[in-house]
Amino acid sequence: MGGDYGPNPIVEGTLEALKKQSFSALLVGDSAQLESKIPKAFKERIEIVHCTDVIQMDDAAANAIRRKESSIFVATELLKNGKADVLVSAGHSGATMSLATLRLGRIEGVSRPAIATVLPHIGGGEFLLLDAGANVDCTAEHLHNFAIMGYEYAKSVLGYPKPKVALLSIGEEECKGNDLTKGAYALLQNFPNFVGNIEGDDIFSSDIAVVVCDGFVGNIALKTSEGVADAITNFIKNFVKESVSGKIGALLMRKVFRKLKKRLDYAEYGGAPLLGVNGNVIIGHGKSNPKAIYNAIKQGIIAHEQQINHKIAQAFIKS
Amino acid sequence: MGGDYGPNPIVEGTLEALKKQSFSALLVGDSAQLESKIPKAFKERIEIVHCTDVIQMDDAAANAIRRKESSIFVATELLKNGKADVLVSAGHSGATMSLATLRLGRIEGVSRPAIATVLPHIGGGEFLLLDAGANVDCTAEHLHNFAIMGYEYAKSVLGYPKPKVALLSIGEEECKGNDLTKGAYALLQNFPNFVGNIEGDDIFSSDIAVVVCDGFVGNIALKTSEGVADAITNFIKNFVKESVSGKIGALLMRKVFRKLKKRLDYAEYGGAPLLGVNGNVIIGHGKSNPKAIYNAIKQGIIAHEQQINHKIAQAFIKS
Repeated sequence: MGGDYGPNPIVEGTLEALKKQSFSALLVGDSAQLESKIPKAFKERIEIVHCTDVIQMDDAAANAIRRKESSIFVATELLKNGKADVLVSAGHSGATMSLATLRLGRIEGVSRPAIATVLPHIGGGEFLLLDAGANVDCTAEHLHNFAIMGYEYAKSVLGYPKPKVALLSIGEEECKGNDLTKGAYALLQNFPNFVGNIEGDDIFSSDIAVVVCDGFVGNIALKTSEGVADAITNFIKNFVKESVSGKIGALLMRKVFRKLKKRLDYAEYGGAPLLGVNGNVIIGHGKSNPKAIYNAIKQGIIAHEQQINHKIAQAFIKS
Repeated sequence: MGGDYGPNPIVEGTLEALKKQSFSALLVGDSAQLESKIPKAFKERIEIVHCTDVIQMDDAAANAIRRKESSIFVATELLKNGKADVLVSAGHSGATMSLATLRLGRIEGVSRPAIATVLPHIGGGEFLLLDAGANVDCTAEHLHNFAIMGYEYAKSVLGYPKPKVALLSIGEEECKGNDLTKGAYALLQNFPNFVGNIEGDDIFSSDIAVVVCDGFVGNIALKTSEGVADAITNFIKNFVKESVSGKIGALLMRKVFRKLKKRLDYAEYGGAPLLGVNGNVIIGHGKSNPKAIYNAIKQGIIAHEQQINHKIAQAFIKS
């Protein structure tokens, strides 16, 4: 209910997923609004869990724990009580994160759950960047946690047989970085497939599956990337308008631009899993369209089938 | 001498600058290599300061202070002794920075000099991002220093009458960010033209003249931007090759692509001034081509004419 565009894209994405995947859906929210959106053919596979409160995007995340009638609170409880296997939300991400951590609890050994964003390698394939904003101030141990969780997710859900893990830093050598990354480098030395530091200009074109950083740096890297991609796209669009040859050229190149758009479109990569909590929680973009919701559901189903949290728990026991 | 391509682009850029600007040049390095590159017409305006040692890109910056015969050491001494007004280097940036700080000293009140990178607003104009890598671990006071220095530089050298200053963070509200940015926000409250936080996706399309952050975050933002721009350009190039219509389209759009390339080309923006030391030091990209050197020299001349360091010193007295 709490996404930027309300329940419409959520329901549409769910219907799309029901057509292609084998699962049943619980839609949590105001039944008066939801009921009419569901075609007869799907009624058997969708159950509406009615609640009336909605946490809005500008509400404080800290208050979420007291809003027991809100859609995100009720949905979290369904996960906690084993009535649902996966939670997908396009609502207030801070509230989702804090409720998931408080109500589901952390996996044994995890000191900080992290948001793992799935991003495109420009040549094809995907990689994980974590943390992407859950933890703005981190210790080296937290980064070590993120590496363990990211490794398991990249292996089980993204399908890398041996995911390479790297630390986002400002130079490839061990001695380059800040106190935090140097500390994390030391802890990660013996981690399987740790390949050292990666710089910002290499993350989109390397073969690294997992890029580890604190949530502040991750969010800056993510947003800056979006900013540059948008700026370049707008630059081309504006100049194309100015000349006839530009317009014809753009028309002839439309296939390329369409492919590029698809490659850069966050909706293709679903949502961001919240790793480290006892449950499969996928945090979608507030502006998620039906395609993004569809992909988030698909991703959540794989995470569940692959028992990702069990694997993460095992990895922490071994570490 | 220490740039990635040796002295050639440095000499060519200097000759270009001598044609268009009123100044005389001291070229510091091996006279055996430099002498032959200088056409007769320029001999009167160029003096070669001979030295033989060169700090290589993979040398440790910490040893630079003992390499008294190196080109960067000798060049720094020329600045210190008042024999030169501006130092431009495309060599080892860590060595340049550390020698400048140790030999020239800091401006009174400055606790940490910072590298200020000049970046393009995609719609036109330029902005400063600082620190871009000199200080990987910062306090809120350091960020406050960077804001003061960046403000003066944007005003005097980039030509903003009232430069807007913002903190790079992960949300616009004061409460968003990490401990460092929240502390810096509090210190900057009363700073002239401080407009609050800016997110990574807005830096290339806003009207902010000065973006303040620690050197680790600045370097990540900078490199990530380069990475995305390169990845998009390569993506388009590769797909264009695959079809005839793509090729023709690209040909018709070549004017757009040329403008975009120029807009994104670091060489257009010269080097990065090292702000906070007693002297005008411009740190160029190791891969600087003649155009980058030309622009770095031009920028250094403006900084000198505008007495930027005097203005920074005054600003610290007032602050």
